[in-house]
Amino acid sequence: MQPENAHQARLLTSLRFNGAQSAAELATQMSLSRSKIGQELARLQESGFVEPAGKAASQGGRRSGLMQLSRRLRFVGVDIGATSLDVGVTDGRLEFVTHTSETINIEDGPETILGRAVEMIDKLRAEGHLPELDGVGVGVPGPVSFRDGFTVSPPIMPGWDRYPVREYFMQQLDCPVLLDNDVNLMAIGEMYCGLARSVPDFLFVKIGTGIGCGIVTGGRVLRGSNGSAGDIGHIAVQGTGPVCGCGRTGCLEAWFSGASLSRDATALARSGDSPGLHELLGDRDALTARDVGIAMRNGDPQALGLVRDGGRRVGRVLAGLVNFANPGMIVVGGGVAGLGHPLLAEVRSELYRRSTPLATSNLPVALSELGGHAGVIGAAGLINDHVLGVNLAS
Amino acid sequence: MQPENAHQARLLTSLRFNGAQSAAELATQMSLSRSKIGQELARLQESGFVEPAGKAASQGGRRSGLMQLSRRLRFVGVDIGATSLDVGVTDGRLEFVTHTSETINIEDGPETILGRAVEMIDKLRAEGHLPELDGVGVGVPGPVSFRDGFTVSPPIMPGWDRYPVREYFMQQLDCPVLLDNDVNLMAIGEMYCGLARSVPDFLFVKIGTGIGCGIVTGGRVLRGSNGSAGDIGHIAVQGTGPVCGCGRTGCLEAWFSGASLSRDATALARSGDSPGLHELLGDRDALTARDVGIAMRNGDPQALGLVRDGGRRVGRVLAGLVNFANPGMIVVGGGVAGLGHPLLAEVRSELYRRSTPLATSNLPVALSELGGHAGVIGAAGLINDHVLGVNLAS
Repeated sequence: MQPENAHQARLLTSLRFNGAQSAAELATQMSLSRSKIGQELARLQESGFVEPAGKAASQGGRRSGLMQLSRRLRFVGVDIGATSLDVGVTDGRLEFVTHTSETINIEDGPETILGRAVEMIDKLRAEGHLPELDGVGVGVPGPVSFRDGFTVSPPIMPGWDRYPVREYFMQQLDCPVLLDNDVNLMAIGEMYCGLARSVPDFLFVKIGTGIGCGIVTGGRVLRGSNGSAGDIGHIAVQGTGPVCGCGRTGCLEAWFSGASLSRDATALARSGDSPGLHELLGDRDALTARDVGIAMRNGDPQALGLVRDGGRRVGRVLAGLVNFANPGMIVVGGGVAGLGHPLLAEVRSELYRRSTPLATSNLPVALSELGGHAGVIGAAGLINDHVLGVNLAS
Repeated sequence: MQPENAHQARLLTSLRFNGAQSAAELATQMSLSRSKIGQELARLQESGFVEPAGKAASQGGRRSGLMQLSRRLRFVGVDIGATSLDVGVTDGRLEFVTHTSETINIEDGPETILGRAVEMIDKLRAEGHLPELDGVGVGVPGPVSFRDGFTVSPPIMPGWDRYPVREYFMQQLDCPVLLDNDVNLMAIGEMYCGLARSVPDFLFVKIGTGIGCGIVTGGRVLRGSNGSAGDIGHIAVQGTGPVCGCGRTGCLEAWFSGASLSRDATALARSGDSPGLHELLGDRDALTARDVGIAMRNGDPQALGLVRDGGRRVGRVLAGLVNFANPGMIVVGGGVAGLGHPLLAEVRSELYRRSTPLATSNLPVALSELGGHAGVIGAAGLINDHVLGVNLAS
């Protein structure tokens, strides 16, 4: 099911963003005749996209009938992480219906993980959360060929290279499917349901195990020439520095990320330089970014130092990107963003110090408020856009 | 004069990019009825946009009439530089008609410079190069509020801050006018008439007195949230370094640009470290980037060293931007690009070394072939797009 023409796409787009409306309101908005709008709405009702939504409040005369997106519409977002698999369901207006999550190991490979995802969707269907299934958006933590629907040389996903993820879901679920990089999807989540609502140009920076960036310009995700745009974790902060997973030295994420925080905090714990981290380590193999947060809040100066140094390096890279892209907002998310304001303060300070005043004169830098949900909401949003024809209409 | 609707904009766009076509061809291309196309073409002919262009080659039956953009259409590009004022005239398809240039000093202020530009346009009209004037695009070497049509805090343009440049030309010339940053216009020139033809995502890097970047994504210039996108001259290469005109240290253009080459080469000449540069300096006050090129080609190792060091720093900044934006091509232009392949070789080498393999797997880096014309062609292209409705249509 897809809108048949640009008029229908514009109608669906307006109903998604603005909710129930009368044919008269829609006709005025779209500069089309009331009869043309009535015709298109009738066809959309036949194909199951829209339904009547009662009468409008009386304006003195005859009360006009409202139309809305069908309440049966369901879009599923699948967010595949390195260690977690999240499945969320939204309605046609991207309101959250339900959400479920499991622990996985992405190295188990695509057959296992994708099979699990389909089972989770089947279970949601059995529980009645999916009166219909209108599309599935899928995110993976690696570079994606958006057009082809598969991952391309993903560094942390052995066995997934060029595996036909989109094809797999389309065959199993018989509905439209799109695959994207997880950070792009989190950016879409922020654009539709997060802090960046109504900001057409912004950056979403995910600091998790690695670091990545979703770039939104003019309300659209910038994917670049072969889909690798936003790969900022491998921008060099200094010529020398720790060796990165990519084989080079000085990459941003080799200096600061969930993985490097774990490495540095564990080293400080073992050397005894930080009694606080030493105590937290106990007899475990390694500390995590979360442990660094605990030690920092307990007043451990070494833990705070790690966070501040990291924030400064992130800020320095972002300063360059702000001069380059001149975004209207920066949203910071991902697990490591849980370190909160001490991290954000350093990012901001370096950013404002190093960017040109014109570019930062009105540039909010904020922590994501969507938490773990940004990815699934963005995935559902991506496929909802596609099915309703939102980009056709804009 | 403006197209009346999206159909007309699509017709004009097709005639601009594809040249003369028959109504039948246009109808097929646009999935519209032949009579609808005939109707819209007739209206476009009335308003002076299109004209008959003879008959198509015979296909056996009746030969159909071709339509083309009116040969009277003229678009003017005005490229205001720090020391030069270029005015170029193109036809509707952006073919160059004529070009004229004068030496100026931008510090003489907007009244003087803009008055000169209008005189140059009047002269072109008197010489018969402007049977009509359908629009003027204007570029200035500083940040521009595209919407407002004025410059915003331009560092090298005293007296120009918020001067209503667009308004001035509109009143003097009574036609549509748009104002943009000169580097954005050079990028548009490259997109329509240069190496980046058919590349939807690319960067144009101008190395002149300063350094700037035009960003094209999906065939459109990315201007950013307040028009300052592409301001890469103030990205920090190292935390310390020479003091920049902006007051900070370590900015790319403080390390390498026309101005810094002049500074460094003059210092090497005076100290006697470079006999070649010393000889070139003679009793002049300062050397220029062009002198560095001469010394380099004469085999002066210090001059070559300046170019190589600079190229490496440009390459390092571009490496980060390539990871971020994943362009499909980089075109390098501006006066300092005249240093040619020794510069380009260093840029490439650093870029390929520091960017992720996925982002550089298919990334040509080339010297502009438009030379000094990129700016005026881009300015004419910007206003041509606007008047014909090219962005409406795409």
